[in-house]
Amino acid sequence: MASTVGQVIKCRAAVAWEAGKPLVIEEVEVAPPQAMEVRMKILYTSLCHTDVYFWEAKGQTPVFPRIFGHEAGGIVESVGEGVTELAPGDHVLPIFTGECKECPHCKSEESNMCDLLRINTDRGVMIHDGKSRFSIKGKPVYHFLGTSTFCEYTVVHVGCVAKINPLAPLDKVCVISCGVSTGYGAAVNVAKPPKGSSVAVFGLGAVGLAAAEGARASGASRIIGVDVNPSRFEAAKKFGCTEFVNPLEHEKPVQEVIAGMTNGGVDRSVECTGNVNAMISAFECVHDGWGVAVLVGVPHKEAEFKTHPLNFLNERTLKGTFYGNYKPRSDIPSVVEKYMNKELELEKFITHSLPFSEINKAFDYMLKGESLRCIIHMDG
Amino acid sequence: MASTVGQVIKCRAAVAWEAGKPLVIEEVEVAPPQAMEVRMKILYTSLCHTDVYFWEAKGQTPVFPRIFGHEAGGIVESVGEGVTELAPGDHVLPIFTGECKECPHCKSEESNMCDLLRINTDRGVMIHDGKSRFSIKGKPVYHFLGTSTFCEYTVVHVGCVAKINPLAPLDKVCVISCGVSTGYGAAVNVAKPPKGSSVAVFGLGAVGLAAAEGARASGASRIIGVDVNPSRFEAAKKFGCTEFVNPLEHEKPVQEVIAGMTNGGVDRSVECTGNVNAMISAFECVHDGWGVAVLVGVPHKEAEFKTHPLNFLNERTLKGTFYGNYKPRSDIPSVVEKYMNKELELEKFITHSLPFSEINKAFDYMLKGESLRCIIHMDG
Ligand SMILES: NC(=O)c1ccc[n+]([C@@H]2O[C@H](COP(=O)([O-])OP(=O)(O)OC[C@H]3O[C@@H](n4cnc5c(N)ncnc54)[C@H](O)[C@@H]3O)[C@@H](O)[C@H]2O)c1
Ligand SMILES: NC(=O)c1ccc[n+]([C@@H]2O[C@H](COP(=O)([O-])OP(=O)(O)OC[C@H]3O[C@@H](n4cnc5c(N)ncnc54)[C@H](O)[C@@H]3O)[C@@H](O)[C@H]2O)c1
Ligand SMILES: [Zn+2]
Ligand SMILES: [Zn+2]
Ligand SMILES: [Zn+2]
Ligand SMILES: [Zn+2]
Repeated sequence: MASTVGQVIKCRAAVAWEAGKPLVIEEVEVAPPQAMEVRMKILYTSLCHTDVYFWEAKGQTPVFPRIFGHEAGGIVESVGEGVTELAPGDHVLPIFTGECKECPHCKSEESNMCDLLRINTDRGVMIHDGKSRFSIKGKPVYHFLGTSTFCEYTVVHVGCVAKINPLAPLDKVCVISCGVSTGYGAAVNVAKPPKGSSVAVFGLGAVGLAAAEGARASGASRIIGVDVNPSRFEAAKKFGCTEFVNPLEHEKPVQEVIAGMTNGGVDRSVECTGNVNAMISAFECVHDGWGVAVLVGVPHKEAEFKTHPLNFLNERTLKGTFYGNYKPRSDIPSVVEKYMNKELELEKFITHSLPFSEINKAFDYMLKGESLRCIIHMDG
Repeated sequence: MASTVGQVIKCRAAVAWEAGKPLVIEEVEVAPPQAMEVRMKILYTSLCHTDVYFWEAKGQTPVFPRIFGHEAGGIVESVGEGVTELAPGDHVLPIFTGECKECPHCKSEESNMCDLLRINTDRGVMIHDGKSRFSIKGKPVYHFLGTSTFCEYTVVHVGCVAKINPLAPLDKVCVISCGVSTGYGAAVNVAKPPKGSSVAVFGLGAVGLAAAEGARASGASRIIGVDVNPSRFEAAKKFGCTEFVNPLEHEKPVQEVIAGMTNGGVDRSVECTGNVNAMISAFECVHDGWGVAVLVGVPHKEAEFKTHPLNFLNERTLKGTFYGNYKPRSDIPSVVEKYMNKELELEKFITHSLPFSEINKAFDYMLKGESLRCIIHMDG
């Protein structure tokens, strides 16, 4: 690979030219990494709802043409000035949020919301010089989440790169980049269900199923899956769900249904829907005295969380989490190790695979609700 | 004292005959303790807002005639059947909420909201037989919070009695029964400010000042007192407050003022006002990534807590606490020890003292906002 160092690389990318229109495989130029940047070869990528959401670009300022993608696994091709922790050949996961290791958030043990590299969905350029590293015939193509993994090569800030065990299969661990870590971390790092406890998981998409998996791994004995789409229930059993509630099948608010099933409320709940009513139910369904509710779903801009303050005074706790409270560089390598040690099963999340040339099918699977994760093989 | 065991005791009580009318010192009959009850001689009692609130009885079902009072120190006179942990002569604090030691809450390490003996402001009788132990010429006078300490002798459920160090001066440690423990515990047990951290305390009444004292004892380096009544600021310095904000003096919401003073927000906040807007501000003024807000104040029935859910997702935590998360029997004796070890200064809270015969003056002091705590000497 030494021959490409310092050179522009020409390779294939799936470019979104317009909101909601199928991606087009194009030849793009990928510039060399600048200071504190890493250029990596992407081997596998998967599709997450966030890609679809910004591709649809409803009610957003459109940023096009753009290269989407943020769940992936790859190998470092070259590094820019000042990068000392990574070298060509390292196996890595690009992450949509970063860790500069120097700001108050990075220095706090509790936060992963880096001031410098925190997720930014609007920015389409690199921080270093405010420019894109991608172009087609000299015209810029914009980045997405600082990762843009729907391309054979991409450039990422070093703070957004997790160096992982080179023995880990990249076609599996690539899903650790986003959704799985978000849900799993929400359970194991934030909700922390004690052994034998009861947990309600609201929303049984990939994130909610990863939360159920985290609750199961933590030793919860009852895991109540809550979804308005009952077609999710069968698959959720594999992730540890022991019972199910469809809020649409009950006249009573779902928090009361759950309180009735659990002698007053669950010990923990994790909300993975993005729906504000589900957030309120997830909070109000935890037991007074000790219940902890954790919010994960990303709400609408105008959403309002409302509850009677007595629900707090009765000793309930409400927390939110971002990326499962994992710090990308410090913590994600150990999540990969959990997979290697068979503590975390990733295969269950992978329902489809496709060659890169057919990437638009992955959008169809997700929009129809057929897939959890579809792995895209960049060499295909 | 052996002569009174098993007998009705005649003694003085300050009886509230009607809502909002001055208490009247009367001779009352105090029946012997029944199963799982304790009769104690009250030596000192103090007045708390909750007494005043239920004495005013605005918008409540009135329960009169009633004997108020729930912050006190006394000595066990006799015990009823089944009481093995206490004996005549023990020094005790009666507590308005209890600990049965057998329900799921009592068995949980995290909760102090006993299913059997949790605070009940409406009940005017003993649990054992649904009757009052107080009477005047045979007609019942009702209990308040199961404590009714404005009486020379009172009967309390054994689960609502903390046995304390007999060397502790009852005229000081009586204030541990309610307000001081509530605020101090909210800080040290729930907010848990790390050493060197910043803490905002909303509301500088006795509860808020106790929270400031707890923050100071925990090693917080900045304690920002927030009150709409700036006459509280001078006294608050003694309790560790280093800075003050009066929300009425700013055009911006107080959460933004505090964020501006603290580079994005305080590490911890404790709300001790009962005002729902202060609760929302107390939540929104904590730093993203790691901030924890604790609600203590008792809100109006129709209050609604509202915030954008993103305030949670940015990794803020909101908790409520009841009685500072202390378990009355298990934990309160150790709070008394903190006073004995000079870790907790109670003298600062005690601004007035009065003989029992002048108890109505204590109501005046509190209603005028002149007192923090007024100690009432039962022998006077
Ligand atoms: N905080 C983070 O770091 C982070 C990262 C990734 C994803 N997310 C968010 O997590 C959420 C879940 O992501 P996903 O990919 O699993 O989504 P998904 O769409 O696959 O799953 C969401 C599930 O929630 C269910 N649902 C919707 N409304 C509901 C309601 N009111 N009650 C019960 N169930 C309801 C849906 O039927 C669906 O099955 C999204 O909001 C996403 O934006 C957050
Ligand atoms: N949770 C419990 O276990 C428990 C126990 C005892 C008391 N309490 C509650 O704690 C609260 C405080 O009790 P206290 O005895 O100290 O009361 P207090 O009336 O002496 O003090 C309250 C203070 O809050 C201030 N305040 C009111 N609204 C405000 C606002 N919007 N912003 C800033 N400051 C504001 C007032 O000026 C006052 O100084 C009350 O709500 C009481 O019911 C709770
Ligand atoms: Zn940082
Ligand atoms: Zn994602
Ligand atoms: Zn109990
Ligand atoms: Zn009180």
